[in-house]
Amino acid sequence: MKAIVTVMPKPGVLDPQGKAIARALDHLGFGGVGEVRAGKVIEVELAATDPEAARKEAASMAEQLLANTVIESFSVTISQ
Amino acid sequence: MKAIVTVMPKPGVLDPQGKAIARALDHLGFGGVGEVRAGKVIEVELAATDPEAARKEAASMAEQLLANTVIESFSVTISQ
Repeated sequence: MKAIVTVMPKPGVLDPQGKAIARALDHLGFGGVGEVRAGKVIEVELAATDPEAARKEAASMAEQLLANTVIESFSVTISQ
Repeated sequence: MKAIVTVMPKPGVLDPQGKAIARALDHLGFGGVGEVRAGKVIEVELAATDPEAARKEAASMAEQLLANTVIESFSVTISQ
């Protein structure tokens, strides 16, 4: 099955990439753009066939490698 | 309302970041890891109050700035 891990900067953590995107959108003429946050999404094909086992494995991957949990939060979605 | 734009490399496009993550997961002892794809997620606060208008605006942002549609595909989710 497939795990989708979404990693976002925690609220209050400075997000320069998001700020740069917000400014670029404004320059392109998109009005009314508020806060922009930029994060990562990682799709991982897992051998696990049990959704709960897959979720735990993906969360462990996020804690050990995919997210810096000091400044980033993550969420895991399992599909198929 | 908030638009969530997810940008992923198109199928068949080389994804070196995903390959590096797959190798690192293997080194960390996660067995049975198949293909890994790495993409971006951008959350944008929009002034639009109509979900359909917000979706169109976010898709336009993705086409013009957030995604390189030659090598990346994107999807838009609207919340609130």
